[in-house]
Amino acid sequence: MKVVFIGAGNLATHLAWTMKGVGITIGQVYSHTADSAKTLASRLDVPWTTEIDEIHFDADLYIFSLKDSVLRSVISQMKTNNALWVHTAGSMPIDVFDGHTERGGVLYPLQTFSKERKVDFRNIPLFLETKREEDRTVLNEIGHLISDNVRFLSSEKRKSLHLAAVFACNFTNHIYSLAYRILSEKDIPADVLLPLIDETAAKIHALAPAQAQTGPAIRYDENVINKHLEMLEDPDMKNLYRLISQSIHRETMK
Amino acid sequence: MKVVFIGAGNLATHLAWTMKGVGITIGQVYSHTADSAKTLASRLDVPWTTEIDEIHFDADLYIFSLKDSVLRSVISQMKTNNALWVHTAGSMPIDVFDGHTERGGVLYPLQTFSKERKVDFRNIPLFLETKREEDRTVLNEIGHLISDNVRFLSSEKRKSLHLAAVFACNFTNHIYSLAYRILSEKDIPADVLLPLIDETAAKIHALAPAQAQTGPAIRYDENVINKHLEMLEDPDMKNLYRLISQSIHRETMK
Repeated sequence: MKVVFIGAGNLATHLAWTMKGVGITIGQVYSHTADSAKTLASRLDVPWTTEIDEIHFDADLYIFSLKDSVLRSVISQMKTNNALWVHTAGSMPIDVFDGHTERGGVLYPLQTFSKERKVDFRNIPLFLETKREEDRTVLNEIGHLISDNVRFLSSEKRKSLHLAAVFACNFTNHIYSLAYRILSEKDIPADVLLPLIDETAAKIHALAPAQAQTGPAIRYDENVINKHLEMLEDPDMKNLYRLISQSIHRETMK
Repeated sequence: MKVVFIGAGNLATHLAWTMKGVGITIGQVYSHTADSAKTLASRLDVPWTTEIDEIHFDADLYIFSLKDSVLRSVISQMKTNNALWVHTAGSMPIDVFDGHTERGGVLYPLQTFSKERKVDFRNIPLFLETKREEDRTVLNEIGHLISDNVRFLSSEKRKSLHLAAVFACNFTNHIYSLAYRILSEKDIPADVLLPLIDETAAKIHALAPAQAQTGPAIRYDENVINKHLEMLEDPDMKNLYRLISQSIHRETMK
Protein backbone atom coordinates (compact mmCIF):
# COMPACT_ATOMS: atom_id res chain seq x y z
CA MET A 1 0.00 0.00 0.00
CA LYS A 2 1.24 3.48 -0.89
CA VAL A 3 0.08 6.60 0.97
CA VAL A 4 0.23 10.24 -0.12
CA PHE A 5 -0.06 13.02 2.44
CA ILE A 6 -1.95 16.13 1.34
CA GLY A 7 -0.87 18.59 4.03
CA ALA A 8 2.21 18.63 6.25
CA GLY A 9 1.09 20.25 9.51
CA ASN A 10 1.50 18.88 13.04
CA LEU A 11 -1.14 16.18 12.71
CA ALA A 12 0.14 15.04 9.28
CA THR A 13 3.71 14.97 10.59
CA HIS A 14 2.90 12.77 13.59
CA LEU A 15 0.57 10.52 11.58
CA ALA A 16 2.99 10.06 8.67
CA TRP A 17 5.86 9.33 11.02
CA THR A 18 3.78 6.77 12.91
CA MET A 19 2.61 5.09 9.68
CA LYS A 20 6.15 4.83 8.39
CA GLY A 21 7.13 3.34 11.78
CA VAL A 22 4.67 0.45 11.35
CA GLY A 23 5.87 -0.27 7.82
CA ILE A 24 3.37 1.62 5.69
CA THR A 25 4.94 3.12 2.54
CA ILE A 26 4.59 6.88 2.30
CA GLY A 27 4.96 7.83 -1.37
CA GLN A 28 4.84 11.64 -1.41
CA VAL A 29 4.04 14.77 0.56
CA TYR A 30 2.07 17.72 -0.79
CA SER A 31 1.81 21.06 0.93
CA HIS A 32 0.90 24.51 -0.31
CA THR A 33 3.96 25.70 1.67
CA ALA A 34 7.29 24.47 0.28
CA ASP A 35 9.02 24.62 3.68
CA SER A 36 6.44 22.37 5.35
CA ALA A 37 6.40 19.93 2.43
CA LYS A 38 10.20 19.76 2.35
CA THR A 39 10.56 19.32 6.13
CA LEU A 40 8.12 16.43 6.38
CA ALA A 41 9.26 14.79 3.13
CA SER A 42 12.90 14.84 4.19
CA ARG A 43 12.03 13.24 7.54
CA LEU A 44 10.22 10.50 5.59
CA ASP A 45 12.79 10.40 2.79
CA VAL A 46 10.15 10.79 0.05
CA PRO A 47 9.49 13.31 -2.75
CA TRP A 48 7.39 16.42 -2.15
CA THR A 49 5.45 18.95 -4.20
CA THR A 50 3.59 22.23 -3.82
CA GLU A 51 1.55 21.65 -6.99
CA ILE A 52 -1.76 19.83 -6.75
CA ASP A 53 -1.46 18.53 -10.32
CA GLU A 54 1.91 16.96 -9.49
CA ILE A 55 0.40 14.76 -6.78
CA HIS A 56 1.08 11.10 -7.60
CA PHE A 57 -1.87 9.44 -9.19
CA ASP A 58 -1.00 5.84 -8.28
CA ALA A 59 -1.32 5.78 -4.47
CA ASP A 60 -3.82 3.58 -2.58
CA LEU A 61 -4.62 6.07 0.14
CA TYR A 62 -4.67 9.88 0.16
CA ILE A 63 -4.71 11.55 3.58
CA PHE A 64 -6.03 15.10 3.51
CA SER A 65 -4.75 16.83 6.62
CA LEU A 66 -5.56 20.44 5.87
CA LYS A 67 -7.16 23.48 7.48
CA ASP A 68 -10.96 23.19 7.38
CA SER A 69 -11.11 26.33 5.24
CA VAL A 70 -9.09 24.90 2.34
CA LEU A 71 -10.13 21.23 2.49
CA ARG A 72 -13.01 21.46 0.01
CA SER A 73 -11.02 23.52 -2.45
CA VAL A 74 -8.01 21.17 -2.50
CA ILE A 75 -10.27 18.11 -2.88
CA SER A 76 -12.05 19.71 -5.82
CA GLN A 77 -8.73 20.36 -7.60
CA MET A 78 -7.58 16.74 -7.30
CA LYS A 79 -7.86 14.38 -10.22
CA THR A 80 -10.35 11.63 -9.39
CA ASN A 81 -8.93 8.13 -9.14
CA ASN A 82 -9.89 4.85 -7.56
CA ALA A 83 -7.98 5.17 -4.28
CA LEU A 84 -9.36 5.74 -0.78
CA TRP A 85 -9.43 9.43 0.16
CA VAL A 86 -9.68 10.29 3.85
CA HIS A 87 -9.50 13.53 5.80
CA THR A 88 -8.45 13.97 9.43
CA ALA A 89 -10.71 16.85 10.53
CA GLY A 90 -13.01 16.58 13.53
CA SER A 91 -15.48 19.18 12.38
CA MET A 92 -15.76 18.35 8.66
CA PRO A 93 -18.40 15.89 7.39
CA ILE A 94 -17.55 12.96 5.17
CA ASP A 95 -19.60 14.47 2.33
CA VAL A 96 -16.85 16.98 1.47
CA PHE A 97 -15.71 14.22 -0.91
CA ASP A 98 -19.09 13.98 -2.68
CA GLY A 99 -18.78 14.60 -6.38
CA HIS A 100 -15.02 13.99 -6.36
CA THR A 101 -14.70 10.37 -5.28
CA GLU A 102 -17.00 7.56 -4.25
CA ARG A 103 -14.38 6.31 -1.82
CA GLY A 104 -14.39 9.09 0.80
CA GLY A 105 -13.52 8.47 4.44
CA VAL A 106 -12.41 10.01 7.71
CA LEU A 107 -9.61 9.13 10.08
CA TYR A 108 -9.86 11.55 13.00
CA PRO A 109 -7.28 11.18 15.77
CA LEU A 110 -8.55 12.82 18.96
CA GLN A 111 -5.41 14.49 20.23
CA THR A 112 -3.60 17.84 20.32
CA PHE A 113 -0.41 17.83 18.26
CA SER A 114 2.60 20.12 18.50
CA LYS A 115 5.66 19.83 16.30
CA GLU A 116 8.03 19.53 19.30
CA ARG A 117 6.19 16.89 21.33
CA LYS A 118 6.32 13.16 20.76
CA VAL A 119 3.00 11.40 21.11
CA ASP A 120 2.29 7.70 21.28
CA PHE A 121 -0.30 7.02 18.59
CA ARG A 122 -1.19 3.64 20.13
CA ASN A 123 -3.06 5.52 22.93
CA ILE A 124 -4.81 7.98 20.65
CA PRO A 125 -8.50 7.28 19.99
CA LEU A 126 -9.11 7.12 16.23
CA PHE A 127 -12.57 7.79 14.84
CA LEU A 128 -13.18 6.32 11.41
CA GLU A 129 -15.90 6.71 8.82
CA THR A 130 -16.24 5.50 5.25
CA LYS A 131 -18.80 6.34 2.60
CA ARG A 132 -18.81 2.80 1.18
CA GLU A 133 -19.42 -0.24 3.33
CA GLU A 134 -16.59 -2.09 1.47
CA ASP A 135 -14.02 0.46 2.63
CA ARG A 136 -14.68 -0.10 6.33
CA THR A 137 -12.41 -3.13 6.51
CA VAL A 138 -9.48 -1.42 4.80
CA LEU A 139 -9.65 1.70 6.96
CA ASN A 140 -10.21 -0.36 10.10
CA GLU A 141 -7.05 -2.36 9.38
CA ILE A 142 -5.04 0.80 8.82
CA GLY A 143 -6.44 2.25 12.05
CA HIS A 144 -5.45 -0.82 14.06
CA LEU A 145 -1.93 -0.76 12.63
CA ILE A 146 -1.29 2.55 14.39
CA SER A 147 -3.67 2.68 17.39
CA ASP A 148 -5.20 0.35 19.99
CA ASN A 149 -8.23 2.60 20.30
CA VAL A 150 -10.18 2.53 17.04
CA ARG A 151 -13.90 2.93 16.39
CA PHE A 152 -16.30 4.09 13.72
CA LEU A 153 -18.32 7.26 14.27
CA SER A 154 -20.75 9.15 12.02
CA SER A 155 -20.01 12.68 10.82
CA GLU A 156 -22.95 13.91 12.91
CA LYS A 157 -21.53 12.48 16.14
CA ARG A 158 -17.98 13.49 15.24
CA LYS A 159 -19.16 17.11 15.24
CA SER A 160 -20.15 16.72 18.89
CA LEU A 161 -16.88 14.97 19.64
CA HIS A 162 -14.97 17.87 18.16
CA LEU A 163 -17.01 20.33 20.21
CA ALA A 164 -16.29 18.34 23.38
CA ALA A 165 -12.59 18.32 22.47
CA VAL A 166 -12.61 22.12 22.18
CA PHE A 167 -13.84 22.24 25.79
CA ALA A 168 -11.52 19.50 27.08
CA CYS A 169 -8.39 20.79 25.37
CA ASN A 170 -8.59 24.37 24.09
CA PHE A 171 -10.78 25.78 26.86
CA THR A 172 -8.95 23.88 29.58
CA ASN A 173 -5.65 25.21 28.30
CA HIS A 174 -7.02 28.75 28.37
CA ILE A 175 -8.15 28.30 31.96
CA TYR A 176 -4.56 27.24 32.76
CA SER A 177 -3.42 30.38 31.01
CA LEU A 178 -5.65 32.59 33.16
CA ALA A 179 -4.41 30.86 36.33
CA TYR A 180 -0.82 31.46 35.21
CA ARG A 181 -1.62 35.11 34.58
CA ILE A 182 -3.00 35.57 38.12
CA LEU A 183 0.25 34.21 39.55
CA SER A 184 2.67 36.02 37.29
CA GLU A 185 1.01 39.34 38.14
CA LYS A 186 1.96 38.63 41.78
CA ASP A 187 5.46 37.35 40.95
CA ILE A 188 4.62 33.84 42.08
CA PRO A 189 6.28 31.19 39.85
CA ALA A 190 3.37 29.74 37.88
CA ASP A 191 4.77 26.22 37.73
CA VAL A 192 3.74 25.70 41.37
CA LEU A 193 0.36 24.88 39.80
CA LEU A 194 1.63 21.86 37.87
CA PRO A 195 1.11 19.17 40.54
CA LEU A 196 -2.46 20.46 41.04
CA ILE A 197 -3.13 20.53 37.31
CA ASP A 198 -1.75 17.01 36.91
CA GLU A 199 -3.82 15.64 39.78
CA THR A 200 -6.98 17.34 38.48
CA ALA A 201 -6.51 15.52 35.15
CA ALA A 202 -5.46 12.24 36.79
CA LYS A 203 -8.44 12.23 39.15
CA ILE A 204 -11.03 11.87 36.40
CA HIS A 205 -9.51 8.57 35.30
CA ALA A 206 -11.09 7.19 38.47
CA LEU A 207 -14.01 9.55 39.10
CA ALA A 208 -16.43 11.27 36.68
CA PRO A 209 -15.67 15.02 36.66
CA ALA A 210 -19.11 15.87 38.08
CA GLN A 211 -18.24 13.67 41.08
CA ALA A 212 -14.71 15.05 41.39
CA GLN A 213 -15.84 18.69 41.64
CA THR A 214 -14.47 20.58 44.66
CA GLY A 215 -14.00 24.25 45.63
CA PRO A 216 -16.02 27.29 46.67
CA ALA A 217 -18.45 27.18 43.73
CA ILE A 218 -19.81 23.70 44.42
CA ARG A 219 -20.42 24.68 48.05
CA TYR A 220 -21.67 28.02 46.74
CA ASP A 221 -19.50 29.69 49.37
CA GLU A 222 -20.56 33.26 48.58
CA ASN A 223 -18.03 34.67 50.99
CA VAL A 224 -15.06 33.24 49.06
CA ILE A 225 -16.71 33.78 45.66
CA ASN A 226 -17.29 37.48 46.37
CA LYS A 227 -13.75 37.95 47.65
CA HIS A 228 -12.41 36.35 44.47
CA LEU A 229 -14.64 38.53 42.26
CA GLU A 230 -13.27 41.61 44.04
CA MET A 231 -9.71 40.47 43.41
CA LEU A 232 -10.23 40.07 39.66
CA GLU A 233 -9.73 43.43 38.01
CA ASP A 234 -10.05 42.27 34.41
CA PRO A 235 -13.78 42.43 33.54
CA ASP A 236 -13.53 39.33 31.28
CA MET A 237 -11.98 37.25 34.02
CA LYS A 238 -14.63 38.50 36.44
CA ASN A 239 -17.38 37.47 34.01
CA LEU A 240 -15.79 34.10 33.40
CA TYR A 241 -15.38 33.48 37.13
CA ARG A 242 -19.04 34.33 37.74
CA LEU A 243 -20.35 32.27 34.83
CA ILE A 244 -18.30 29.15 35.58
CA SER A 245 -19.16 29.32 39.29
CA GLN A 246 -22.87 29.55 38.47
CA SER A 247 -22.53 26.68 36.04
CA ILE A 248 -20.79 24.53 38.69
CA HIS A 249 -23.47 25.37 41.18
CA ARG A 250 -26.27 24.56 38.77
CA GLU A 251 -24.71 21.18 38.09
CA THR A 252 -25.24 20.24 41.74
CA MET A 253 -28.96 20.84 41.33
CA LYS A 254 -29.36 18.44 38.42
CA MET B 1 7.10 16.79 68.89
CA LYS B 2 3.42 16.09 69.34
CA VAL B 3 0.80 17.21 66.85
CA VAL B 4 -2.96 17.59 67.32
CA PHE B 5 -5.26 17.72 64.30
CA ILE B 6 -8.25 20.06 64.58
CA GLY B 7 -10.38 18.80 61.71
CA ALA B 8 -10.46 15.42 60.00
CA GLY B 9 -11.40 16.13 56.38
CA ASN B 10 -9.60 15.03 53.24
CA LEU B 11 -6.67 17.41 53.62
CA ALA B 12 -6.23 16.60 57.34
CA THR B 13 -6.41 12.89 56.60
CA HIS B 14 -3.68 12.97 53.94
CA LEU B 15 -1.49 15.36 55.92
CA ALA B 16 -1.78 13.43 59.18
CA TRP B 17 -1.07 10.16 57.45
CA THR B 18 1.99 11.63 55.72
CA MET B 19 3.29 13.14 58.98
CA LYS B 20 2.93 9.85 60.79
CA GLY B 21 4.78 8.20 57.93
CA VAL B 22 7.84 10.41 58.45
CA GLY B 23 7.89 9.74 62.18
CA ILE B 24 5.99 12.73 63.57
CA THR B 25 3.84 11.85 66.60
CA ILE B 26 0.16 12.58 66.15
CA GLY B 27 -1.37 12.92 69.63
CA GLN B 28 -5.08 13.39 69.01
CA VAL B 29 -7.76 14.17 66.44
CA TYR B 30 -10.61 16.61 66.99
CA SER B 31 -13.59 16.90 64.72
CA HIS B 32 -17.05 18.33 65.22
CA THR B 33 -18.29 15.13 63.53
CA ALA B 34 -17.73 11.97 65.58
CA ASP B 35 -17.55 9.74 62.49
CA SER B 36 -14.77 11.78 60.87
CA ALA B 37 -12.82 12.06 64.12
CA LYS B 38 -13.14 8.33 64.78
CA THR B 39 -12.18 7.32 61.22
CA LEU B 40 -9.00 9.38 61.10
CA ALA B 41 -8.03 8.63 64.72
CA SER B 42 -8.37 4.89 64.19
CA ARG B 43 -6.19 5.05 61.07
CA LEU B 44 -3.57 6.87 63.16
CA ASP B 45 -4.21 4.81 66.27
CA VAL B 46 -4.68 7.87 68.51
CA PRO B 47 -7.49 9.22 70.72
CA TRP B 48 -10.19 11.47 69.30
CA THR B 49 -12.76 13.95 70.59
CA THR B 50 -15.68 16.05 69.40
CA GLU B 51 -15.35 18.52 72.28
CA ILE B 52 -13.13 21.55 71.88
CA ASP B 53 -12.42 21.69 75.62
CA GLU B 54 -11.16 18.12 75.57
CA ILE B 55 -8.43 18.94 73.07
CA HIS B 56 -5.06 18.04 74.57
CA PHE B 57 -3.29 21.06 75.99
CA ASP B 58 0.28 19.72 75.83
CA ALA B 59 0.94 19.39 72.07
CA ASP B 60 3.67 21.32 70.25
CA LEU B 61 1.75 21.90 67.07
CA TYR B 62 -1.98 22.32 66.39
CA ILE B 63 -3.08 21.96 62.77
CA PHE B 64 -6.42 23.61 62.04
CA SER B 65 -7.80 22.01 58.92
CA LEU B 66 -11.37 23.27 58.92
CA LYS B 67 -13.88 24.87 56.62
CA ASP B 68 -13.16 28.59 56.22
CA SER B 69 -16.55 29.39 57.74
CA VAL B 70 -15.83 27.75 61.11
CA LEU B 71 -12.08 28.38 61.42
CA ARG B 72 -12.33 31.64 63.40
CA SER B 73 -14.96 30.30 65.74
CA VAL B 74 -13.03 27.12 66.61
CA ILE B 75 -9.81 29.09 67.15
CA SER B 76 -11.60 31.47 69.50
CA GLN B 77 -12.92 28.59 71.61
CA MET B 78 -9.47 27.03 72.09
CA LYS B 79 -7.56 27.59 75.31
CA THR B 80 -4.45 29.64 74.59
CA ASN B 81 -1.14 27.84 75.13
CA ASN B 82 2.44 28.21 74.01
CA ALA B 83 2.35 25.84 71.02
CA LEU B 84 2.52 26.67 67.33
CA TRP B 85 -0.95 26.94 65.77
CA VAL B 86 -1.20 26.67 62.01
CA HIS B 87 -4.10 26.50 59.59
CA THR B 88 -4.12 24.91 56.13
CA ALA B 89 -6.50 27.23 54.25
CA GLY B 90 -5.52 28.97 51.03
CA SER B 91 -7.95 31.82 51.35
CA MET B 92 -7.66 32.64 55.08
CA PRO B 93 -5.11 35.20 56.34
CA ILE B 94 -2.67 34.44 59.13
CA ASP B 95 -4.33 37.06 61.34
CA VAL B 96 -7.25 34.74 62.15
CA PHE B 97 -5.04 33.75 65.09
CA ASP B 98 -4.68 37.33 66.38
CA GLY B 99 -5.89 37.69 69.95
CA HIS B 100 -5.72 33.93 70.56
CA THR B 101 -2.05 33.09 70.15
CA GLU B 102 1.14 34.92 69.27
CA ARG B 103 2.40 31.82 67.49
CA GLY B 104 0.08 31.67 64.49
CA GLY B 105 1.13 30.17 61.19
CA VAL B 106 -0.02 28.69 57.90
CA LEU B 107 0.86 25.47 56.13
CA TYR B 108 -1.04 25.47 52.83
CA PRO B 109 -0.58 22.45 50.57
CA LEU B 110 -1.54 23.33 47.00
CA GLN B 111 -3.36 20.19 45.95
CA THR B 112 -6.85 18.73 45.60
CA PHE B 113 -7.54 15.92 48.05
CA SER B 114 -10.11 13.16 47.87
CA LYS B 115 -10.54 10.50 50.51
CA GLU B 116 -10.08 7.67 48.01
CA ARG B 117 -6.97 8.86 46.20
CA LYS B 118 -3.41 8.46 47.38
CA VAL B 119 -1.23 11.52 46.86
CA ASP B 120 2.52 11.80 47.19
CA PHE B 121 3.09 14.74 49.54
CA ARG B 122 6.75 15.03 48.47
CA ASN B 123 5.57 16.59 45.17
CA ILE B 124 3.02 18.91 46.71
CA PRO B 125 4.04 22.58 46.93
CA LEU B 126 3.72 23.78 50.55
CA PHE B 127 3.27 27.47 51.29
CA LEU B 128 4.25 28.49 54.79
CA GLU B 129 3.81 31.62 56.84
CA THR B 130 4.49 32.42 60.48
CA LYS B 131 3.58 35.47 62.54
CA ARG B 132 6.83 35.37 64.52
CA GLU B 133 10.23 35.33 62.85
CA GLU B 134 11.41 32.67 65.38
CA ASP B 135 8.78 30.19 64.20
CA ARG B 136 9.96 30.19 60.59
CA THR B 137 12.71 27.63 61.25
CA VAL B 138 10.39 25.20 63.06
CA LEU B 139 7.69 25.31 60.41
CA ASN B 140 10.24 25.16 57.61
CA GLU B 141 11.73 21.99 59.11
CA ILE B 142 8.28 20.39 59.43
CA GLY B 143 7.53 21.37 55.84
CA HIS B 144 10.72 19.78 54.52
CA LEU B 145 10.01 16.57 56.42
CA ILE B 146 6.97 15.97 54.25
CA SER B 147 7.59 17.82 50.96
CA ASP B 148 10.46 18.66 48.59
CA ASN B 149 8.66 21.79 47.47
CA VAL B 150 8.46 24.24 50.36
CA ARG B 151 8.43 28.05 50.39
CA PHE B 152 7.17 30.98 52.46
CA LEU B 153 4.39 33.16 51.07
CA SER B 154 2.49 36.10 52.59
CA SER B 155 -1.26 35.92 53.29
CA GLU B 156 -1.79 38.57 50.62
CA LYS B 157 -0.06 36.52 47.92
CA ARG B 158 -1.61 33.28 49.15
CA LYS B 159 -5.02 34.79 48.36
CA SER B 160 -3.97 35.11 44.72
CA LEU B 161 -2.54 31.62 44.76
CA HIS B 162 -5.84 30.27 46.00
CA LEU B 163 -7.71 32.15 43.29
CA ALA B 164 -5.36 30.74 40.64
CA ALA B 165 -5.93 27.26 42.09
CA VAL B 166 -9.70 27.69 41.73
CA PHE B 167 -9.13 28.30 38.02
CA ALA B 168 -6.53 25.55 37.54
CA CYS B 169 -8.43 22.89 39.45
CA ASN B 170 -12.10 23.63 40.10
CA PHE B 171 -12.82 25.47 36.84
CA THR B 172 -10.76 23.04 34.76
CA ASN B 173 -12.65 20.14 36.28
CA HIS B 174 -15.95 21.81 35.44
CA ILE B 175 -14.84 22.28 31.83
CA TYR B 176 -14.11 18.53 31.77
CA SER B 177 -17.60 18.00 33.12
CA LEU B 178 -19.18 20.04 30.33
CA ALA B 179 -17.16 18.13 27.72
CA TYR B 180 -18.35 14.85 29.24
CA ARG B 181 -21.94 16.10 29.12
CA ILE B 182 -21.69 16.91 25.40
CA LEU B 183 -20.54 13.34 24.71
CA SER B 184 -22.94 11.51 26.98
CA GLU B 185 -25.87 13.32 25.35
CA LYS B 186 -24.75 11.72 22.07
CA ASP B 187 -24.04 8.30 23.61
CA ILE B 188 -20.32 8.61 22.95
CA PRO B 189 -18.26 7.08 25.80
CA ALA B 190 -16.78 10.13 27.54
CA ASP B 191 -13.51 8.47 28.47
CA VAL B 192 -12.35 8.79 24.85
CA LEU B 193 -11.37 12.30 26.01
CA LEU B 194 -8.83 11.09 28.59
CA PRO B 195 -5.74 10.90 26.34
CA LEU B 196 -6.49 14.43 25.11
CA ILE B 197 -7.04 15.73 28.64
CA ASP B 198 -3.80 14.10 29.81
CA GLU B 199 -1.78 15.52 26.94
CA THR B 200 -3.27 19.01 27.46
CA ALA B 201 -2.03 18.94 31.07
CA ALA B 202 1.32 17.32 30.17
CA LYS B 203 2.04 19.84 27.43
CA ILE B 204 2.29 22.81 29.78
CA HIS B 205 5.18 21.18 31.62
CA ALA B 206 7.20 22.08 28.53
CA LEU B 207 5.32 25.05 27.10
CA ALA B 208 3.57 27.99 28.82
CA PRO B 209 -0.22 27.63 28.33
CA ALA B 210 -0.42 30.84 26.30
CA GLN B 211 2.08 29.29 23.85
CA ALA B 212 0.33 25.91 23.87
CA GLN B 213 -3.06 27.31 22.83
CA THR B 214 -4.63 25.67 19.78
CA GLY B 215 -8.13 25.38 18.33
CA PRO B 216 -10.74 27.46 16.50
CA ALA B 217 -10.78 30.33 19.03
CA ILE B 218 -7.09 31.23 18.72
CA ARG B 219 -7.45 31.31 14.93
CA TYR B 220 -10.77 33.07 15.47
CA ASP B 221 -12.27 30.67 12.96
CA GLU B 222 -15.78 32.17 12.97
CA ASN B 223 -17.09 29.41 10.77
CA VAL B 224 -16.33 26.69 13.33
CA ILE B 225 -17.17 28.93 16.30
CA ASN B 226 -20.63 29.73 14.92
CA LYS B 227 -21.32 26.09 14.12
CA HIS B 228 -20.38 25.15 17.69
CA LEU B 229 -22.57 27.90 19.14
CA GLU B 230 -25.50 26.57 17.11
CA MET B 231 -24.91 23.07 18.45
CA LEU B 232 -25.00 24.16 22.10
CA GLU B 233 -28.61 24.25 23.23
CA ASP B 234 -27.96 25.06 26.87
CA PRO B 235 -27.80 28.88 27.14
CA ASP B 236 -25.14 28.73 29.89
CA MET B 237 -22.88 26.54 27.80
CA LYS B 238 -23.42 28.86 24.83
CA ASN B 239 -22.45 31.86 26.97
CA LEU B 240 -19.41 30.10 28.35
CA TYR B 241 -18.30 29.02 24.89
CA ARG B 242 -18.60 32.58 23.60
CA LEU B 243 -16.86 34.16 26.59
CA ILE B 244 -13.92 31.73 26.67
CA SER B 245 -13.44 31.97 22.89
CA GLN B 246 -13.35 35.76 23.10
CA SER B 247 -10.93 35.57 26.00
CA ILE B 248 -8.63 33.22 24.03
CA HIS B 249 -8.76 35.51 21.05
CA ARG B 250 -8.00 38.59 23.13
CA GLU B 251 -4.95 36.86 24.59
CA THR B 252 -3.44 36.67 21.12
CA MET B 253 -3.65 40.45 20.84
CA LYS B 254 -1.68 41.11 24.05
